[in-house]
Amino acid sequence: MRKILVIGSGKSASSLLKYLLDKSASENLFITVSDLNLNAAKKLIGNHQNAKAILLDVFDETSRTEAIKNADIVVSMLPARFHIEVAKDCILLGKHMVTASYVSPEMQALDEDAKTKGLVLMNEIGVDPGIDHMSAMQVLDRIRNNGGKIILFESFTGGLVAPESDNNLWNYKFTWNPRNVVTAGQGGTAKFLQEGTYKYIPYNRLFRRTEFLDIDNYGRFEVYANRDSLKYQSVYGLDNVKTLYRGTMRRVGFSRAWNIFVTLGMTDDSYTIDDSENMSYRDFINAFLTYSPFDSVELKLRHALKIDQDDIVWDKLIELDIFNAEKKVGLKKATPAQILQKILMDSWTLDTNDKDMIVMYHKFGYEKDGKKYQIDANMVVLGEDQTYTAMAKTVGLPVAMATLAILNKKITSPGVQIPITKEVYEPILKELETFGVSFHEKEVPYLGYNPLNN
Amino acid sequence: MRKILVIGSGKSASSLLKYLLDKSASENLFITVSDLNLNAAKKLIGNHQNAKAILLDVFDETSRTEAIKNADIVVSMLPARFHIEVAKDCILLGKHMVTASYVSPEMQALDEDAKTKGLVLMNEIGVDPGIDHMSAMQVLDRIRNNGGKIILFESFTGGLVAPESDNNLWNYKFTWNPRNVVTAGQGGTAKFLQEGTYKYIPYNRLFRRTEFLDIDNYGRFEVYANRDSLKYQSVYGLDNVKTLYRGTMRRVGFSRAWNIFVTLGMTDDSYTIDDSENMSYRDFINAFLTYSPFDSVELKLRHALKIDQDDIVWDKLIELDIFNAEKKVGLKKATPAQILQKILMDSWTLDTNDKDMIVMYHKFGYEKDGKKYQIDANMVVLGEDQTYTAMAKTVGLPVAMATLAILNKKITSPGVQIPITKEVYEPILKELETFGVSFHEKEVPYLGYNPLNN
Repeated sequence: MRKILVIGSGKSASSLLKYLLDKSASENLFITVSDLNLNAAKKLIGNHQNAKAILLDVFDETSRTEAIKNADIVVSMLPARFHIEVAKDCILLGKHMVTASYVSPEMQALDEDAKTKGLVLMNEIGVDPGIDHMSAMQVLDRIRNNGGKIILFESFTGGLVAPESDNNLWNYKFTWNPRNVVTAGQGGTAKFLQEGTYKYIPYNRLFRRTEFLDIDNYGRFEVYANRDSLKYQSVYGLDNVKTLYRGTMRRVGFSRAWNIFVTLGMTDDSYTIDDSENMSYRDFINAFLTYSPFDSVELKLRHALKIDQDDIVWDKLIELDIFNAEKKVGLKKATPAQILQKILMDSWTLDTNDKDMIVMYHKFGYEKDGKKYQIDANMVVLGEDQTYTAMAKTVGLPVAMATLAILNKKITSPGVQIPITKEVYEPILKELETFGVSFHEKEVPYLGYNPLNN
Repeated sequence: MRKILVIGSGKSASSLLKYLLDKSASENLFITVSDLNLNAAKKLIGNHQNAKAILLDVFDETSRTEAIKNADIVVSMLPARFHIEVAKDCILLGKHMVTASYVSPEMQALDEDAKTKGLVLMNEIGVDPGIDHMSAMQVLDRIRNNGGKIILFESFTGGLVAPESDNNLWNYKFTWNPRNVVTAGQGGTAKFLQEGTYKYIPYNRLFRRTEFLDIDNYGRFEVYANRDSLKYQSVYGLDNVKTLYRGTMRRVGFSRAWNIFVTLGMTDDSYTIDDSENMSYRDFINAFLTYSPFDSVELKLRHALKIDQDDIVWDKLIELDIFNAEKKVGLKKATPAQILQKILMDSWTLDTNDKDMIVMYHKFGYEKDGKKYQIDANMVVLGEDQTYTAMAKTVGLPVAMATLAILNKKITSPGVQIPITKEVYEPILKELETFGVSFHEKEVPYLGYNPLNN
């Protein structure tokens, strides 16, 4: 039996484990799932004979190394900051490792050791990062192999609510870490390339500089820029590209309403409010508005942001019940971002029967034989329920497939890797299609941003 | 002869030295002025027999300690970050010291040593901080001594151009460090107290949440909030105050126009632009606007910020020549803030005959015998020329007066001090009046922010 240790049995472990368990007989696998919460781990494997659940505190060195020693390969589904101790043990004990997280500088530092020992440390093989890398590189490599020269690459991903569960005015619910949604876009100016020039968007303009995207059968979406559009420029071989833009997808109208919170300062996570616990939702809003003994919080907000009486953004605010003077924040010494998250969770938490949706959209512009072309590719994955969510599928399945491929010596390049080579992306994308995770490509007229250049 | 060492002969040393030299015969003073630039130091003392200029690099320990050893008291007019080595030597060598800068944590750490040795380390005795402390505490103490209870304190200072030199649309020129003007308000949300509740203003709203102030004979000003309105709350004895607000004064209309730069991201000092050197002013603006092959930078800017064709802010932009496609930035790898500063210096540098102006405005609200009262006090100081500027007078004179008062044992409380006690502020404010640095007080009906409470 080949032994797989899966550390962490959180939200995205369901599809990962189902895949591995389903293959365990034919592939001769035994899966050990470890978690601080033994019941959570047990629940995911049921009574499967090729699996067991163990209690594991990753900060307990003895039991951690013991568990890793007994495995042939280790999958870490822990939050990103906890991978590094596991990775160091893997190097020491000669085990391959797979994660869905961004490569941290500490992880990157293990590259040489991993290569020396012939170990694969595969990272960024979930959905974003992960499926975006693989699907983008597949098309980019194909265009280049056919003699095309890439001039434009844009890539967008969104974690949203499935159309059948999309029943609020924001067309949004929390399908993943709410905190990341509230603080999205903070920490620096967004920088990207458009028709050969660098463009910059400060945080306070980020949600007003959106663009539209249409997906057949799913309608229109909007995107706002990621901070790091240029992050993979060299890795993807796009050093001479004219347009390079990466962003986050939302349903149309989300960003304009969200910008109200940004503008007022309600997403700030850098300071705490002293008596936040006893504040009402209404007090919280009022802390960002001028003082007045007469005027209502509502009118002060409308006036400050020039919101007309018939503007739909107003209904979005009302839906969140933010003007409620009775509901208390109930969080001690909380930051504005933490308080806003609390308020949003009242409205944006998934109902038991709600399903999520992952959308991804790539645009590839290229030149060949003096002509310009464009390929658009998009992916929509719907969740089945609240266990086998779209997020769990798109994160967990590629992780599981990579794990098996490494065990089967189909992925062999040692070192700290991300899934951008054909040996990795080709079989995994193909297999993902059998799980309904597939891209729809179409040739469209090259648009770019400058019709004069066409 | 009592020996005074003045380290640094920059902009604000002129009035300081003139005061000390004028008193040198009657007070038996000998003044040594040191600078890295010997000529600058020499120029300020002329041929005065009671003074000499020496070359001094404050980072050269040997010559620094030698110079300090020979003095009875040391005045540091260096940039704030350079005071600490001088202060440590003063403690070691048993010398008093005076600076106009904010007390740094390192400076504060010397408090106990200074007390043990009976040394006065007087700081924050320039204009802001300095004259604001003294003039505020004088009125606050008087109100309290008369049985009043302070309920409101607001304090505003501005370094502006004198009315006779006020000839641009912004009613503004750089009279002090331009960099501080460009980055003003960054680094955190402004927090203040208004009628008993905390209010918060994020940077992107700071220049839209202004208030007006009127000064007899000088017309109307506007103020935007300082980040640190609550900084001196306890020091001033205002722990139970309902309204506490500190801000910066500008002429009306400055902030609304300035907010254009803030909103677009042009004041950002946190990243550099690669090819800034060869950018035109127009390219710089365009980097913060959407790409378009057709539309003008002007129209894109008007559209992005919804600026009507007849809005005066537009004329302010035109006056700065920011749409010029020929003028090059000429700064290597500069931040947006550095580039903006360069552009502004073309327009906002003082002409040879221009004069500056310091304005200060305090509001004191108090209760006595069940009634509410308000005292407003303001100060306007005009520069004489570009040597004896309003800034040099208001910074240098109180520093000089404190220095002499320490020598004459009129200020004796040892330790790291700021000028908030009567022994310090009373004689200095009185003497400042003889130099035209005086406050005009008037009783006004209590306004506060809540007419219902009157």
